[in-house]
Amino acid sequence: MGTAVAAKGLQGVVAANSGICWIDGEAGVLAYRGIDIHELADKSTFEETAFLLWFGKLPSRRELDEFRQHLTQARSLDPKMIDLLRSFPRGATPMEVLRTAVSALSFYDPDENANDHDANVRKSFRLTSQIAMIVAAYDRLRKNKLPVEPDSSLSHAANFLWMLNGEKPSATATRSLDVALILHADHELNASTFAARVIAATLSDVHSAMTGAIGALKGPLHGGANEAVMRMLFAIDKEGADPIQYVKRKLDAKEKISGFGHRVYRTEDPRATHLRKMSEELGRASGNLKWFEMSRAIEKYILAEKKLNANVDFYSASTYTTLGIDLDLFTPLFAVSRIAGWAAHVIEQLDDNRLIRPRADYVGPEYPVKYIPLESR
Amino acid sequence: MGTAVAAKGLQGVVAANSGICWIDGEAGVLAYRGIDIHELADKSTFEETAFLLWFGKLPSRRELDEFRQHLTQARSLDPKMIDLLRSFPRGATPMEVLRTAVSALSFYDPDENANDHDANVRKSFRLTSQIAMIVAAYDRLRKNKLPVEPDSSLSHAANFLWMLNGEKPSATATRSLDVALILHADHELNASTFAARVIAATLSDVHSAMTGAIGALKGPLHGGANEAVMRMLFAIDKEGADPIQYVKRKLDAKEKISGFGHRVYRTEDPRATHLRKMSEELGRASGNLKWFEMSRAIEKYILAEKKLNANVDFYSASTYTTLGIDLDLFTPLFAVSRIAGWAAHVIEQLDDNRLIRPRADYVGPEYPVKYIPLESR
Repeated sequence: MGTAVAAKGLQGVVAANSGICWIDGEAGVLAYRGIDIHELADKSTFEETAFLLWFGKLPSRRELDEFRQHLTQARSLDPKMIDLLRSFPRGATPMEVLRTAVSALSFYDPDENANDHDANVRKSFRLTSQIAMIVAAYDRLRKNKLPVEPDSSLSHAANFLWMLNGEKPSATATRSLDVALILHADHELNASTFAARVIAATLSDVHSAMTGAIGALKGPLHGGANEAVMRMLFAIDKEGADPIQYVKRKLDAKEKISGFGHRVYRTEDPRATHLRKMSEELGRASGNLKWFEMSRAIEKYILAEKKLNANVDFYSASTYTTLGIDLDLFTPLFAVSRIAGWAAHVIEQLDDNRLIRPRADYVGPEYPVKYIPLESR
Repeated sequence: MGTAVAAKGLQGVVAANSGICWIDGEAGVLAYRGIDIHELADKSTFEETAFLLWFGKLPSRRELDEFRQHLTQARSLDPKMIDLLRSFPRGATPMEVLRTAVSALSFYDPDENANDHDANVRKSFRLTSQIAMIVAAYDRLRKNKLPVEPDSSLSHAANFLWMLNGEKPSATATRSLDVALILHADHELNASTFAARVIAATLSDVHSAMTGAIGALKGPLHGGANEAVMRMLFAIDKEGADPIQYVKRKLDAKEKISGFGHRVYRTEDPRATHLRKMSEELGRASGNLKWFEMSRAIEKYILAEKKLNANVDFYSASTYTTLGIDLDLFTPLFAVSRIAGWAAHVIEQLDDNRLIRPRADYVGPEYPVKYIPLESR
């Protein structure tokens, strides 16, 4: 039949050609369209990075202005979407809400019935703005506050914080979130992006692909890991435990410590470098270095004991907490950024599409098993 | 880095071990848990087939009674779900609605926070019953009719037709739909099932996996194909064209004819055999053989001219139309059946899980591309 058996979880299997993201796991290199993530984290913005991911090059001044304008014009939700968010039961988690709301957005999308390149770029603008708005609006609603109207004078990062808190964010908070959004914007064929491509490749639609991607991101082995890190830090703090003793105890009980190791990197996750720095800077600025110091102690211990490096999730936990973001918004915030990468991958997939349909290695009862009638069983 | 380049679309790549579905594409064999699809189509029911897929063997009488009871007990939607369906705009397509509603079901699932084997079996019962109810209820609502209460004395197939039409279905209609549900219940790592496994493997939840699967099924290269077949038959009928001339014209214009060929089968799709028979029988019973005869003529022509066999989608089109099912319910009906296979695969995936995270072959600008500041671009 000409099948090739791949490693479990498709580890190391090349499932697509892609010109978007370059990862060298041995050297610890991550680059978008060839540009090193360290340069982008130091010098770029989320908007510019999204342009780079979607169009393959850095924008000119005019292109960037237009791109920003498309995003701010797309900061609009049909009033029925707010009604929908209000109708969800109070206990609904933000990721369930986001998954459901993004699926519902297709009802109101003017390009709903189009699946060509240009329509999908327009949908990507809308979804990038709308996902941020939904996360912020639902958080307001569940806290019995009114959603905040978007401010088109603000950047994507600043507008998100504005819509979340109803206060103009500081320059430090805005820049920290902007860098976090840059760092999380793409990561090649991670599980959510791969899910998005599998869905898009049936020639379904962008909303289906993004809804599936959000469902994948929700998993604790993917987007949920930084939430698990923060839960651990909170538990250590509540117990008044020594972080190293706490982690040692977990490891002795064969429990997994979230935020360490990575399927692809064999060295430090280059995103962790920036998030560590940000966690420390934000801690220092807010006069509370507790979460950073706790994280740093655990990081050193796990590296020495288990030879595992901190990954992107480890320091994003303390960074987001210091930014005042609720625990259960960490993964939605990941989606607020990763939509840029998902969109780039879906558009790339559809520009040269083939249905993604692998095979299974059959390990069940040997064919043919006889059908035994009910009365003889 | 130890990567292996796979064929485009993962064609022929083994992405998982699975004991659920055996396909021999060369010989045209399809079997669930080793039992040939022809035996199941002739002798089994959807309920028994779902038991087989989930638990790996045919049920005893007692096991089958219990299984049916679980399904009928799960025929229940939170009243807020009906409110939700009512709130969707009139033009919302049934697949968008199903995707959104299945995502919202997690709000009301009593096992929402559990992801263990037993909880996922319970969720699978609920979703199997609820997906059928949502498809039927939304179709009623969009036609300004009240949803029909489920009837626990009816089989899964009969209850679906009852809830759709508000009339007790004939034995022939019930058996035809039951066989169609058996034939569509699983097909190894098709795109929607693969999407479900990719999503589940992040340890997300069953509702996320099913929502993503529905999004994938929506695509015209997957679940949407039988709808395309029927649109063609309607177009031929409306034009009063000769079916062969019509198809010839399409082929000359390099257009694709839906319902032919398959990624896996090199011979006749064994499901097509039954659907052809059913299309003819239903046509004969209803005194209208038009759609069957039109289909048969096209099938013979395409086989002779293009050496392509009819697949599962080709005769399901005329079968469903003869059953009185609306065109845009064909793909939702596919989901009503395939939920059985999705559930089996998600449970199997989680019983021996590993994150599904392939790699991409990078074809973009060579690293490192220098970051040029905005003012110098």
